[in-house]
Amino acid sequence: MTDTEPSPAVSETAESIATMEIRGAATIASAAAEALAEQAEAAAEADATASDPEAFRASLRAAARTLRETRPTAVSLPNALRYVLQRMEGDSVDRLRRSVVDASEAFVRQLDRAQEDLGQVGANRLADGDTVMTHCHSTDALACIEAAVEQGKSISAVVKETRPRQQGHITAEQLRDAGVPVTLIVDSAARRYLDEVDHVVVGADSIAADGGVINKIGTSGLAVNARERGVPIMTAAQTIKLHPETLTGHTVEIEMRDEAEVIDPEAREAIGEIDVENPAFDVTPPRYMDAIVTEQGQFPPESIVTLMRELFGEGAAEPWAEP
Amino acid sequence: MTDTEPSPAVSETAESIATMEIRGAATIASAAAEALAEQAEAAAEADATASDPEAFRASLRAAARTLRETRPTAVSLPNALRYVLQRMEGDSVDRLRRSVVDASEAFVRQLDRAQEDLGQVGANRLADGDTVMTHCHSTDALACIEAAVEQGKSISAVVKETRPRQQGHITAEQLRDAGVPVTLIVDSAARRYLDEVDHVVVGADSIAADGGVINKIGTSGLAVNARERGVPIMTAAQTIKLHPETLTGHTVEIEMRDEAEVIDPEAREAIGEIDVENPAFDVTPPRYMDAIVTEQGQFPPESIVTLMRELFGEGAAEPWAEP
Amino acid sequence: MTDTEPSPAVSETAESIATMEIRGAATIASAAAEALAEQAEAAAEADATASDPEAFRASLRAAARTLRETRPTAVSLPNALRYVLQRMEGDSVDRLRRSVVDASEAFVRQLDRAQEDLGQVGANRLADGDTVMTHCHSTDALACIEAAVEQGKSISAVVKETRPRQQGHITAEQLRDAGVPVTLIVDSAARRYLDEVDHVVVGADSIAADGGVINKIGTSGLAVNARERGVPIMTAAQTIKLHPETLTGHTVEIEMRDEAEVIDPEAREAIGEIDVENPAFDVTPPRYMDAIVTEQGQFPPESIVTLMRELFGEGAAEPWAEP
Amino acid sequence: MTDTEPSPAVSETAESIATMEIRGAATIASAAAEALAEQAEAAAEADATASDPEAFRASLRAAARTLRETRPTAVSLPNALRYVLQRMEGDSVDRLRRSVVDASEAFVRQLDRAQEDLGQVGANRLADGDTVMTHCHSTDALACIEAAVEQGKSISAVVKETRPRQQGHITAEQLRDAGVPVTLIVDSAARRYLDEVDHVVVGADSIAADGGVINKIGTSGLAVNARERGVPIMTAAQTIKLHPETLTGHTVEIEMRDEAEVIDPEAREAIGEIDVENPAFDVTPPRYMDAIVTEQGQFPPESIVTLMRELFGEGAAEPWAEP
Amino acid sequence: MTDTEPSPAVSETAESIATMEIRGAATIASAAAEALAEQAEAAAEADATASDPEAFRASLRAAARTLRETRPTAVSLPNALRYVLQRMEGDSVDRLRRSVVDASEAFVRQLDRAQEDLGQVGANRLADGDTVMTHCHSTDALACIEAAVEQGKSISAVVKETRPRQQGHITAEQLRDAGVPVTLIVDSAARRYLDEVDHVVVGADSIAADGGVINKIGTSGLAVNARERGVPIMTAAQTIKLHPETLTGHTVEIEMRDEAEVIDPEAREAIGEIDVENPAFDVTPPRYMDAIVTEQGQFPPESIVTLMRELFGEGAAEPWAEP
Amino acid sequence: MTDTEPSPAVSETAESIATMEIRGAATIASAAAEALAEQAEAAAEADATASDPEAFRASLRAAARTLRETRPTAVSLPNALRYVLQRMEGDSVDRLRRSVVDASEAFVRQLDRAQEDLGQVGANRLADGDTVMTHCHSTDALACIEAAVEQGKSISAVVKETRPRQQGHITAEQLRDAGVPVTLIVDSAARRYLDEVDHVVVGADSIAADGGVINKIGTSGLAVNARERGVPIMTAAQTIKLHPETLTGHTVEIEMRDEAEVIDPEAREAIGEIDVENPAFDVTPPRYMDAIVTEQGQFPPESIVTLMRELFGEGAAEPWAEP
Repeated sequence: MTDTEPSPAVSETAESIATMEIRGAATIASAAAEALAEQAEAAAEADATASDPEAFRASLRAAARTLRETRPTAVSLPNALRYVLQRMEGDSVDRLRRSVVDASEAFVRQLDRAQEDLGQVGANRLADGDTVMTHCHSTDALACIEAAVEQGKSISAVVKETRPRQQGHITAEQLRDAGVPVTLIVDSAARRYLDEVDHVVVGADSIAADGGVINKIGTSGLAVNARERGVPIMTAAQTIKLHPETLTGHTVEIEMRDEAEVIDPEAREAIGEIDVENPAFDVTPPRYMDAIVTEQGQFPPESIVTLMRELFGEGAAEPWAEP
Repeated sequence: MTDTEPSPAVSETAESIATMEIRGAATIASAAAEALAEQAEAAAEADATASDPEAFRASLRAAARTLRETRPTAVSLPNALRYVLQRMEGDSVDRLRRSVVDASEAFVRQLDRAQEDLGQVGANRLADGDTVMTHCHSTDALACIEAAVEQGKSISAVVKETRPRQQGHITAEQLRDAGVPVTLIVDSAARRYLDEVDHVVVGADSIAADGGVINKIGTSGLAVNARERGVPIMTAAQTIKLHPETLTGHTVEIEMRDEAEVIDPEAREAIGEIDVENPAFDVTPPRYMDAIVTEQGQFPPESIVTLMRELFGEGAAEPWAEP
Repeated sequence: MTDTEPSPAVSETAESIATMEIRGAATIASAAAEALAEQAEAAAEADATASDPEAFRASLRAAARTLRETRPTAVSLPNALRYVLQRMEGDSVDRLRRSVVDASEAFVRQLDRAQEDLGQVGANRLADGDTVMTHCHSTDALACIEAAVEQGKSISAVVKETRPRQQGHITAEQLRDAGVPVTLIVDSAARRYLDEVDHVVVGADSIAADGGVINKIGTSGLAVNARERGVPIMTAAQTIKLHPETLTGHTVEIEMRDEAEVIDPEAREAIGEIDVENPAFDVTPPRYMDAIVTEQGQFPPESIVTLMRELFGEGAAEPWAEP
Repeated sequence: MTDTEPSPAVSETAESIATMEIRGAATIASAAAEALAEQAEAAAEADATASDPEAFRASLRAAARTLRETRPTAVSLPNALRYVLQRMEGDSVDRLRRSVVDASEAFVRQLDRAQEDLGQVGANRLADGDTVMTHCHSTDALACIEAAVEQGKSISAVVKETRPRQQGHITAEQLRDAGVPVTLIVDSAARRYLDEVDHVVVGADSIAADGGVINKIGTSGLAVNARERGVPIMTAAQTIKLHPETLTGHTVEIEMRDEAEVIDPEAREAIGEIDVENPAFDVTPPRYMDAIVTEQGQFPPESIVTLMRELFGEGAAEPWAEP
Repeated sequence: MTDTEPSPAVSETAESIATMEIRGAATIASAAAEALAEQAEAAAEADATASDPEAFRASLRAAARTLRETRPTAVSLPNALRYVLQRMEGDSVDRLRRSVVDASEAFVRQLDRAQEDLGQVGANRLADGDTVMTHCHSTDALACIEAAVEQGKSISAVVKETRPRQQGHITAEQLRDAGVPVTLIVDSAARRYLDEVDHVVVGADSIAADGGVINKIGTSGLAVNARERGVPIMTAAQTIKLHPETLTGHTVEIEMRDEAEVIDPEAREAIGEIDVENPAFDVTPPRYMDAIVTEQGQFPPESIVTLMRELFGEGAAEPWAEP
Repeated sequence: MTDTEPSPAVSETAESIATMEIRGAATIASAAAEALAEQAEAAAEADATASDPEAFRASLRAAARTLRETRPTAVSLPNALRYVLQRMEGDSVDRLRRSVVDASEAFVRQLDRAQEDLGQVGANRLADGDTVMTHCHSTDALACIEAAVEQGKSISAVVKETRPRQQGHITAEQLRDAGVPVTLIVDSAARRYLDEVDHVVVGADSIAADGGVINKIGTSGLAVNARERGVPIMTAAQTIKLHPETLTGHTVEIEMRDEAEVIDPEAREAIGEIDVENPAFDVTPPRYMDAIVTEQGQFPPESIVTLMRELFGEGAAEPWAEP
């Protein structure tokens, strides 16, 4: 590589992310952090950067930009980059290299254990004999329920099917496999079944600095009803779901998905000319969420901003930007 | 007929109701009221009852019992019988006959105009330019929206598909035909779209004395969210939907429908052994409903009990019972 | 008796009420209604009233005043008088007499069945397997629970002890005798146990025209918590508890009871100079009460005013007053 | 007059109302009711109507129409007509005449005492030592406070100035004259002072069938804050303010007043091109109002519809319409 | 001592805690912190640890474990250990020793002043002339009220007796001694008296990471009512009450106390076979608590988790565990 | 200067602040920070302090006290002093000097960009097509709206006039100049217009540690109504508005302004003897505010305490106090 180019490892990872060979929030984040470590090792040996701390820093930022551009909307990818770059420090290239490698390793190590750690935290909030209600399919949320079962607690589940894509069926199957008795219902039946439910457990697509939880469409309506029925609700989400860009007030753009998920094109044509809208997510205000459960512990939604700043910096700054 | 037998008209109507040849809440109610009028005419000429007011009364009660038994769970049928029998009065058979015939005619006349009258009342609550949200398919609710359009108001609609049976598709089509621009959404998207909605309009399966509205599953969760979002919500329901049995504290039994409506048996089997529950209705507490719109005008849900007692008596008494 | 004096029956009843020989809301009301009937019979035969409808009316009003003055704060006593006097009508003494006797009999008949009828209504609101929470000791509330048990429903109870007089002990014993499993708790534990409760059932000392329920101190705080926890709450109260004087805006005066009920005088002296206050009742606003259950059926608290006016007149008028 | 013409009395009254010689809700209502009585007397003697009950009825309806058209938006005027026409009954002209005259007299008699009666009811809701908060200037609301003072209660007042027209100054003066200590504040200070207030007392422009209170702009925001602060709020309104047209779902049109009340034209010009909007009233939902105080007693807002139907008929019907 | 044994100071303290010679949250915490300092001094001189930093650390951890095991459920004890061990740092034994001694001294110094500092903070929230309501007996809560009195503010108190153990009597006495006029009430009277109260002040048994306040049974119901009545409520609690174990989702186990506190065994037997439950504490959700007042200042309950992590670490880690 | 006197730069700045030559929260804060830097430079050269770190520190504290005393109630002034003094650190005078100068420069640099940065954050919360509602006149709030316009978003505004001083006129003019269509309304019309509003944007006078927002009278009532109507509300406030003294529980004293702002003395005299109260601000509890927007990003109100401690220290300590 020339001194201004990213190392081959970075290029390769970038391409694999872009082609979706590497996919899934945690896998992408891991790969990005590791690519930065490899870039640090390479830059510590490359002529133009080996003895020039500033050039070393620049090469790391450039690598981060390359990685960042592969998937502009994923939240875990920039979080990996932020985590590592923010911990890059030292006066010499060697110290810089070490700090990057250490940060990368710490990040990956934490990520490897994150779901299990988070599952323990969420499980601790559940009591033996509880009935939980789920919405959509979230491996983080399921990790909590499964960990509770492993703790020896008897847990039952009311599973919302979660139109339009019925990910509730996957949740039902996975819980069923974990030995959890499952009752499947349509989404509209939620309020009726909340009277029999002890805890609602949902995942998150991302979490905003104002404490809002962006999750599968229907979460916010469920949360409002859970509060009205007196049932606690928690979000299970690894910290890579925290969305530092929201620190600067940005709202998370909600993806509008294919209308065919909602209604068969033929059926639609039969009805006549109508609009069909299919937003993928909605935002649950912090006041309707009792806790956010992460691998770092549980937090009231209103204090997640502090964790966000601690882990990923103050957001306004993009650590990969040219100074 | 012998004196103790119902007239042929009653028997015939009873059979048609039982065989579901006569169906639909309004049609059943009309037929039942007319059958009582025919019974009154017949009894006024039959030997054993023509000159014995008490025997005349007994024959009417017997006819009502015969009709009542054909469909024990329909709410409009006993309401028709209550309405007429409660207005049976007089010292002579002739007066009794006349009172029954008059009450029957009044009931049928009112019923004939009920949906149109109700539609006007509901339409008056809507303003030009309003966007309404609908749940399920209710001809009473649609009558309000259509009447608003006929009043020259420009109305748009956000139509919830209403799982599991997607009656929202029928609603969408009917509104589309009335020239109302329609946006179809999944039920879970309701809270998100409430921010763009000016009024929620739903129908009712029946209405309880405590002001609770029994309607398609999902109505109560929608009402809670409408209140939280600051959007008014009304129920459109003819008075034959009022449920006088609830005056004595009875709760309306909620039908559990076929699980196959919720999940394809094959898909279910693939998941493993789970329960599937499919309640048809839920109950919206009066505090979350802004108005109940009937052909007799609009009412706060908390005062519907007064109308119920006025129209159908005090409930505890079954006017067809043997004294 | 002279023409202007109440009949001996009235005097006797008045004295028995005054001396508390006749006591209990229902017993007093019955006795008062019967005394008016006896007064009517006597007045129909007395010289000065037998042929003078106006004098007859005056004698009935006088009798009512005599009875009324025996216990100025009881609510059932004036209700009995209102009920009967309001139905006194006719152009002749005979018709007047008959109307009074009929009204008196109707009132007493209704009263005799009231608790049982009310119990059925309340029981119908409960479901098999329900756990109810009680406050204080109310025979009307207990009638609902006992009737539910007699309907074959399995009911459990969480009984609040109800300081300062611990009437919860009586409730616990009575429920225990009815075969209801009882858990006794201190009043402060209510919110914690509401999560295990399906219905709160309380009685009433009286009910105001604005829908407020005057009941044993602690009821309103319990109702607020029941709403917050999503648990329905009903008041069981015979219609003699309705308080027509509140129609004219009067608030029900809350009795302040002996401080020694709250703290032993000796313990108090040990503390030093403090005030001790011991209000007997509080007022639950209608928005926190789901239903009022009477022998005439169930009502939302907001519509009880209509029943009140129907049964006991419009309140401002005191039917026993001199014209 | 010819038989089809209104009597001179009716014509005169109509003109005086139209020219606003007769003005004020109560004065208009009184005049209208009296004009109908005069029409009845005249029609009972006119050739074409004296012996033809149907012609008599038609002449009364015609008179009502004449009166009605003078001020199409006033609510007290049609209420007076409704009240009287609805009580017109009998088979003979004489009976019809008498019923009209009686109803007219009853209406006027009630109206004469209404404010005083209402004041007593409202005053009974206040306690000695209470501080009340007022909005705008309402003689009905003031009647409550003044009656409380006359009952010997010590009352203080926090008076909102009520922009844009500062009617609070009139209220302050009138209360001051009644010996009530007054604190004047800007409208925005209301929430802060609610902590020192025991009761909010407002008037009404009109009251809708769904329990909504139409009153001076700012009432609804005040009511929401009163609930949030735990302070009870009542509306004082004579029954001529009830709005029977809302029974059929009609919303009360809100008058938009002159912009110059909000901002001096010169000041406005200085700002540049802006819109200024000046709605006169807003609507307080029944759930934020604790009681409506009328001369007929107090009512929860949710039950006012029953009183409305009782006094003025079922609304849909216009009793002055040609059959 | 051998190198692996705790120093005599630690053993002695451990025994005194175990035998409850040392008792009270603050006293235990102080003793534990001081024992660690003594262990540090001893280990800095013992052969096996004096020159082996790792052995030194191990000996401190062992001492902490010894102390920890004496009272597994106290929250202040592990907090003292966490505070000190977390601040143990340095490359040499001398630096380690110094860091431990410094941390121990800082902890004890802070603890010595904690209640007084906290009292000032709480007092600053109160205004001259305020009436406060108390629940149970909390020296931290009392410190706030007493400090307000010392600031020259005139404070009155409404004291809830706090069944079952009536600790309100102690509170009443202590406030009485501080010159605060006291009104004693039963717990059920709280909502009624909240209208006369400006601030509710309670203590805490412990505080959870999700902002929940664990305090004497009845606190949560009081908090819900305080919010409904518009009255602010604060918790006064030293930071040793923060519960770092809840960071990992653990809920605080609620002690069930002797039934005889609730009902005299004899009275109970008279009732028949019933359950009596006597939970000592309940959990108030953060949304019903306005502020938590500590010696470090005041905090919204939702941000206490940040203070908890700052003072005592991230919770999941137990700093005394073998690595 | 002598060694114990503040440098001329400090004296001069102090005088300019005292005489209000220097005014405005940001200008005062800037000047104070700069004066401390100048004091540091001077002290680093003065005999008595140049080589005595402790004397140097003392001279900085003295300078801060001098500045502090000029305007005891301004919140930005002590914040500037706290920010700088808290970052004063080092063992030598040179390091101390550098730390003070650096902190001063950092503070001023941040302040220079604060409004612009904050405006971006606030603008990001707004969406194209939004209608915002404003209260009073706040340059921070306006910066958000103007930045949104500069981002190319189409924004309309409903501007409350904000009695008594009608600062809404200034807001209207400034928005008008920015090309924002403006509708001006009286304060009482807010709830009515909230149905057409997407976001409420207000400024702050100061922000308390418990998350309360002290702002122009009327803000809290508006916030309560915004929540009730489902409309989000944000506070735009630079971090110099954070009020560290509230960390110790102090409530912010609310200025009572001249009564003549509320009512013309002549008009007042005409009314008679009344009180007029004119509080300048009120406090909005954190639970009614969705976000606080600062130049450091957005925060839920409940977590602002963490930022406050981070920027300005723990509050109880006054860094300018003599040790």
